[in-house]
Amino acid sequence: MGNLADKFREYFLQNSLKELHDTIQELSISELILLWHDFNEGESLQLFSYLDLEQKIDLINQISEEEQSDLLKALSSEGQRQILMQMDPDDLADLIQTVNHDVRETVWNSLDEETRKETQFLLRFDSDDAAGLMTPRYVALRSNITVEQAIRFIREGNKDLETIYYVYVVDNLQRLMGVISLREILIAKDQERIGERMEKNVISVREDTDQEEVAKILEDNDFIAVPVVDSFHRLLGIVTFDDVIDVIREEQTEDIYKMGAMEGSADVYLHTSVWKLLKKRIPWLILLLLTGTITTNVLDLFSHIFDAAAFLIIFIPVITQTGGNTGTQSSTLIIRGLAMGELQFSDLGKVILKEIALGILMGIILGVLILARSLFLPPVVGLYEAVVLGFSLIFVVLFSTIIGSIAPLLIHKAGGDPTVIAAPLMSTFIDVMGLTIYAVTAQTMLSMASG
Amino acid sequence: MGNLADKFREYFLQNSLKELHDTIQELSISELILLWHDFNEGESLQLFSYLDLEQKIDLINQISEEEQSDLLKALSSEGQRQILMQMDPDDLADLIQTVNHDVRETVWNSLDEETRKETQFLLRFDSDDAAGLMTPRYVALRSNITVEQAIRFIREGNKDLETIYYVYVVDNLQRLMGVISLREILIAKDQERIGERMEKNVISVREDTDQEEVAKILEDNDFIAVPVVDSFHRLLGIVTFDDVIDVIREEQTEDIYKMGAMEGSADVYLHTSVWKLLKKRIPWLILLLLTGTITTNVLDLFSHIFDAAAFLIIFIPVITQTGGNTGTQSSTLIIRGLAMGELQFSDLGKVILKEIALGILMGIILGVLILARSLFLPPVVGLYEAVVLGFSLIFVVLFSTIIGSIAPLLIHKAGGDPTVIAAPLMSTFIDVMGLTIYAVTAQTMLSMASG
Repeated sequence: MGNLADKFREYFLQNSLKELHDTIQELSISELILLWHDFNEGESLQLFSYLDLEQKIDLINQISEEEQSDLLKALSSEGQRQILMQMDPDDLADLIQTVNHDVRETVWNSLDEETRKETQFLLRFDSDDAAGLMTPRYVALRSNITVEQAIRFIREGNKDLETIYYVYVVDNLQRLMGVISLREILIAKDQERIGERMEKNVISVREDTDQEEVAKILEDNDFIAVPVVDSFHRLLGIVTFDDVIDVIREEQTEDIYKMGAMEGSADVYLHTSVWKLLKKRIPWLILLLLTGTITTNVLDLFSHIFDAAAFLIIFIPVITQTGGNTGTQSSTLIIRGLAMGELQFSDLGKVILKEIALGILMGIILGVLILARSLFLPPVVGLYEAVVLGFSLIFVVLFSTIIGSIAPLLIHKAGGDPTVIAAPLMSTFIDVMGLTIYAVTAQTMLSMASG
Repeated sequence: MGNLADKFREYFLQNSLKELHDTIQELSISELILLWHDFNEGESLQLFSYLDLEQKIDLINQISEEEQSDLLKALSSEGQRQILMQMDPDDLADLIQTVNHDVRETVWNSLDEETRKETQFLLRFDSDDAAGLMTPRYVALRSNITVEQAIRFIREGNKDLETIYYVYVVDNLQRLMGVISLREILIAKDQERIGERMEKNVISVREDTDQEEVAKILEDNDFIAVPVVDSFHRLLGIVTFDDVIDVIREEQTEDIYKMGAMEGSADVYLHTSVWKLLKKRIPWLILLLLTGTITTNVLDLFSHIFDAAAFLIIFIPVITQTGGNTGTQSSTLIIRGLAMGELQFSDLGKVILKEIALGILMGIILGVLILARSLFLPPVVGLYEAVVLGFSLIFVVLFSTIIGSIAPLLIHKAGGDPTVIAAPLMSTFIDVMGLTIYAVTAQTMLSMASG
């Protein structure tokens, strides 16, 4: 990719217009985005000026909010207008919601009356809901028109429609009565009525359905689009598969960030300022540090045990780390199951039984392993000391497995987001409890031996 | 959901056929899957027998490999044949590759000659490649036919086609020459030739293109389907958006599993045996335990320092945990950037600079915090001891941030999968190095104070 950027830099330098246009023509949108991220601001703007309108719109839809603001600010008002008027209304509404305040005003002024109305309609809705993803540019017909009329309508139709592959049937109050795919229409005979061929049992979402739920419904049904209705079952718009893919990617990044102990949205790393990255990272680190220091109290509380049996100290990190790893595994499995809709709170009993079985098995395997390791590899400890370590680890693993599986179910039940507790908060809790279990087990076993 | 399952149990018990059929008619595929997972095997089979053919196929495509095997084994050979013959060929090929050996043979025998040929063709390809996702049921035409002829062809066409919304244009050697959407065809005039209207610059993937790459291409271009070609640019099949969504979900689960220190595929938790869960979890735990015990050597090596300044011991878990959290944040950001194609190895310099700045800022904030915490909250330490802790933490955080960001870039460059090192292996390495930094910093500062 570096080569492509350099090639463009040379073209810019030598002002080789023909080569520029030819190379840009060949660029896929993926290459375009990579190139955009490789360039500095001046180069990006230069590249942008050579793109055709469609490429410009594709690119704008794929860059971050900050980049959108910067780019729009740099364009002439005619350049802005040209792009904005051609954008899909749902993308336009998103853009207007996210750009800087000053950019927003010039954007708004450059729209014509009709686009402004359409956008205003979309701006009423929360951007994380079904309505926030929808476009109002769908095909809607009445049930009594014939297949032939429908085909003619579509063939002469508005080229701004987001998709023509599903035709929605509404009554005179705009209520959704049915749906028929273009495919069904084409297969049907010319004189048949749409109402006879349409699917009456339409799967739709409400305007306030959460975007993840919308994604799930579209996915499960392999739909190209899903209709959005209000509380009177009136058709408001449709959400298309490409927006759903964006939602899945976005949620994916946010989930992965949460597992990595961070909050916030998916931004392009290289284009995110140190300040913004700090804001994303430091709150979690502070929280984890403060809760994590509870381990100092635990160790202080049991210091007499560690003083009496110094070999226990050097195994502290192994014990806490193994507990943390086991707990994270359990919570990851449960959280994923909850997210995919395969698990629910009523499965608590089954989950606990399974995790107890797993905890015992894994505890024994790991316990034997640390016993063997500490008998045969330096730092070598005595046999009874190794047995103490092995038993401690069994209890820590069993405990961590159970907590790691129960906690997400409880948090989910209470209406919280179990992902935020996954890797990070879990490990703090498991550290504290793991050290306690470790100290108490060791003390009990050592006093049994000496007593 | 529990209510729905109970409702069905009652219907089964009372043999209420009409209510059963009515309720099943209303079930969405998502509800059907939830119900399936709520039922035991006998109930599931009973439910299955009442589904219509389409629901049966939808369900089979959504359940796990083990469940597919079990279900097929339980069906009569006529029941099997009916379902298998109606499945999409790509789904059928997947099923044949994954079911038990004994089920595979009966499945194979129940197919007719044509389906067997089609499936055999698909079975030649790796299931993780573009070809493993593709269906051979697309529309292909020659460039010289007219729009009117094309529409007639589609209207009279084969109902088994996966999509008719893209029409591919091939030459007499089956080489891909262009593509035209059904929408473009409908807008065009009857007498125009397909060749004049088609897009000649077709974006396609090779048969061996990795499935993640295929997903990225379809996503970036908002395609409903993307064509798959061989090395002679001959059209082999198409990959549709619904298969791409499945790929994205699958990769998502696998990435999340890897971050949770597990290997393997996405299975339904409640339907996965303890044995299979153990196989997924224990290898990582063993690896992490064995590498993690290196910390015992480090602590053993520096035991004279810890003996001389006992307050250092109780802060061991906080230091390692904070280092681990910081490193995990950095590696999560970099790994996600790599996965989304926003980062590459050549960005190493920029990444390091950014992480150094972040590491210093976060280190100072966290260092001051632990200093204050250990001065004012029990277990209280002296001022100079608190300063030692603060400085140690700064160095540990800075180191962890840099390693957490460089390691994924290096591993990616070397062709490895950076996700597997994310949370787990990273934290072991950072534990070992963090403890070393901690011990050395403390020793240096304490000897400075006493010297």
